[in-house]
Amino acid sequence: MPVVKPRTLSGFMELLPPPQQQMERILEILRRTYALYGFTPLDTPLMEAAEVLLAKGGGETEKQIYRFQKGDADLALRFDLTVPLAKYVALHSHELSFPFRRYQIGKVYRGERAQRGRFREFYQADIDIIGDGTLSVVNDAEIPSIIYRTFSALGLRKFHIRVNNRKILNGFYEMQGLTEKSGDIMRTVDKLDKIGPGKVRAILTDDFSVAPEKVDAVLDFLSLSEKAADSAAVLASLEAYRGRNPLFDAGLDELRTVTRYLDSFGVPGDHFKVDLTIARGLDYYTGTVYETTLDEYPEIGSVCSGGRYDNLAAYYTDRKLPGVGISIGLTRLFYILQERGLLNADLPTAPADVLVLPMTDDLSPAMALATTFRENGLRVQLYCEGGKFKKKVGYADRLRIPYAVFMGEDEIRDGVVTCKDMSSGEQTTLSAAATLERIKAGLARRESGRIILG
Amino acid sequence: MPVVKPRTLSGFMELLPPPQQQMERILEILRRTYALYGFTPLDTPLMEAAEVLLAKGGGETEKQIYRFQKGDADLALRFDLTVPLAKYVALHSHELSFPFRRYQIGKVYRGERAQRGRFREFYQADIDIIGDGTLSVVNDAEIPSIIYRTFSALGLRKFHIRVNNRKILNGFYEMQGLTEKSGDIMRTVDKLDKIGPGKVRAILTDDFSVAPEKVDAVLDFLSLSEKAADSAAVLASLEAYRGRNPLFDAGLDELRTVTRYLDSFGVPGDHFKVDLTIARGLDYYTGTVYETTLDEYPEIGSVCSGGRYDNLAAYYTDRKLPGVGISIGLTRLFYILQERGLLNADLPTAPADVLVLPMTDDLSPAMALATTFRENGLRVQLYCEGGKFKKKVGYADRLRIPYAVFMGEDEIRDGVVTCKDMSSGEQTTLSAAATLERIKAGLARRESGRIILG
Repeated sequence: MPVVKPRTLSGFMELLPPPQQQMERILEILRRTYALYGFTPLDTPLMEAAEVLLAKGGGETEKQIYRFQKGDADLALRFDLTVPLAKYVALHSHELSFPFRRYQIGKVYRGERAQRGRFREFYQADIDIIGDGTLSVVNDAEIPSIIYRTFSALGLRKFHIRVNNRKILNGFYEMQGLTEKSGDIMRTVDKLDKIGPGKVRAILTDDFSVAPEKVDAVLDFLSLSEKAADSAAVLASLEAYRGRNPLFDAGLDELRTVTRYLDSFGVPGDHFKVDLTIARGLDYYTGTVYETTLDEYPEIGSVCSGGRYDNLAAYYTDRKLPGVGISIGLTRLFYILQERGLLNADLPTAPADVLVLPMTDDLSPAMALATTFRENGLRVQLYCEGGKFKKKVGYADRLRIPYAVFMGEDEIRDGVVTCKDMSSGEQTTLSAAATLERIKAGLARRESGRIILG
Repeated sequence: MPVVKPRTLSGFMELLPPPQQQMERILEILRRTYALYGFTPLDTPLMEAAEVLLAKGGGETEKQIYRFQKGDADLALRFDLTVPLAKYVALHSHELSFPFRRYQIGKVYRGERAQRGRFREFYQADIDIIGDGTLSVVNDAEIPSIIYRTFSALGLRKFHIRVNNRKILNGFYEMQGLTEKSGDIMRTVDKLDKIGPGKVRAILTDDFSVAPEKVDAVLDFLSLSEKAADSAAVLASLEAYRGRNPLFDAGLDELRTVTRYLDSFGVPGDHFKVDLTIARGLDYYTGTVYETTLDEYPEIGSVCSGGRYDNLAAYYTDRKLPGVGISIGLTRLFYILQERGLLNADLPTAPADVLVLPMTDDLSPAMALATTFRENGLRVQLYCEGGKFKKKVGYADRLRIPYAVFMGEDEIRDGVVTCKDMSSGEQTTLSAAATLERIKAGLARRESGRIILG
């Protein structure tokens, strides 16, 4: 007699087998693509000493953290992959070689208010390049290439990588004598897309007492990238400000380096934009910042973001460790793609490529066939449950297993196998080797699509 | 100024990049091999409602569980992958097709006393086949094939899959009128290997008041498998007991089925043993039980265990769900292999296959080369930091990146690249395409070994 009603916690994604297979495809593509750029996989604990994880302290995040005692230990679950990276690099810095490039795809935990599309357990897929003391800006220039190849490998066609540089913004606010108000201004102009320039102007003048002519200067400046035809044109407009602030000039040089090498790194110009409105929060990033948006779904916001930071692990070590990195919020992205029907349902999601159905009492020939197929890389399920023939074939149908293979007395006597393509209904009776080739060709055809449409 | 000393919790494995790469190889082989048998990957939350996770209640495990409150919620981290599977199948039973075959490789948590080689966070790699009401014993027969292929794919040569059947044991104890004492007896004889038959005899007669002639009968029976030359001989000896107890007879029939199909399933007889001393705990398993031992390291115990159970999810549903499954305690296994030097250090563990070193101010040609190599599947790191030539090459050396590629003015002018094999020192100056082929051939050679030795 059941005693507890089974349930999964709200805010925790638990997929049925077909969508889980789609998620596995995405994970595999991310692992493979990140590895192409020389990033090494890391796998750090999900749990850390609370003192270590919360070294930075304060902030909105702390309230959301899963923190608890076990015996004497004060423990917490990681809420991102950056703090564990900082700990890892500080702890093992003498055993690592710099620049240190790592990717990590793992679950993180935030006890947010549960609502549709918000997750308390979710995957982040991060890459970071950490330097020892210094790190060349060429690394910043390589990041758009990684974003481009990753989303292209996932199948996406219509997206833009948007890049800005925090030094350009901060330098500009310095020029305007607005450094003290730059935080308020950036937070406000970040809403430009949503509330429009009229409201932004009102907030800046009324709430933050920015002089009207300064507001004009800010809005003019930020609109440069929207007005320009391409990245080269934005850079040309920015040159008009050169020579007035060293921070600005440094940021402009960095942005020039990032855009200059796009072509060599294989990033088509039409997938890239310099966007002066991107700021990415206030404290952490210090140079290049990245966002990635889907052309047809701007309301989703950025699906891959990151930037350059001056010092990864100041809370753990005196060693200065500048870095640059990006993160994909994978669980949220998957949820959105699923909601909008952007996951390709034609790619196989079945647990097996072939269902082998023995039709004789002696199961050995069917098993030997399954074994041979497996040795040749096919995913094979042998179905040996009782029941009528129709039920057995129905099982392959329900699981969308693409091929069913029948081994009856005739087949065994003649040394052949009967194989049915479950989608076309086409049935062949051929040697095992010929059947294997037929199935492999069919699978290659089925596998040829891209996982994300759009 | 650092405020917190970075540390990783004791009992939590955190690997440096080279061993992590070895672990990734193992994970990839497990995923691929499990998939060949038609198991679908699952990924359930690490956290569940405590009420759900502890439905079964009691036991040694409960004390070890990480359980905590967040707001009103009483939460716990999973301590195995079986309870979450039971929940999953009960919750989604109407959306699944049975037999339901899933694999899951994930971390589980047990707050055990910390000691060397014991982990509080560890990977389990499980497969289970769940039937709806019934499940053919042919599935039990397939499991040794999965174990054999998995460990063979990992590189192991010297191991044995040991199989027994709980019905044979329980039937035998029934015959002897020892059913009530069968739990005590099984717990005691489980120590045969460690304490020897003399001590076992003493404990059974003195502590559990088993009559001496019954003790003889038990020890005689259990020694049948040790005395027999092979599995066929054990089965022949067991036939002598047939007809005296229906449970025993059923178990013997099941064991015959499991051994009968080994050959068709590709399991060599010399890797398989019927071993009557294997019992695998007391409550859970009801039929076939499995253990896997390394011939040269018997003291490690079983590295892959499991068995048949009558009902997976009785705490969650009225639906009867029999199953059979096995589990590999991956973190412990990895630790042991590492300790004993059984992980093949010759397989590449570098983050990249090639380090590209630009030798000119314009980095574009080196970047374009890196891009071409990546498009052809090579893992490439572009090294653009400052410093002397020696330092740059030393970086490739320290990370054991197998090839370094130099792009200087001469190379760019002549349309060639210079490539150094970092282990042999051999240097070639060839076209990019020819260099790519050379590197690919070298990598294939380096990749040809097996990951686990022994």
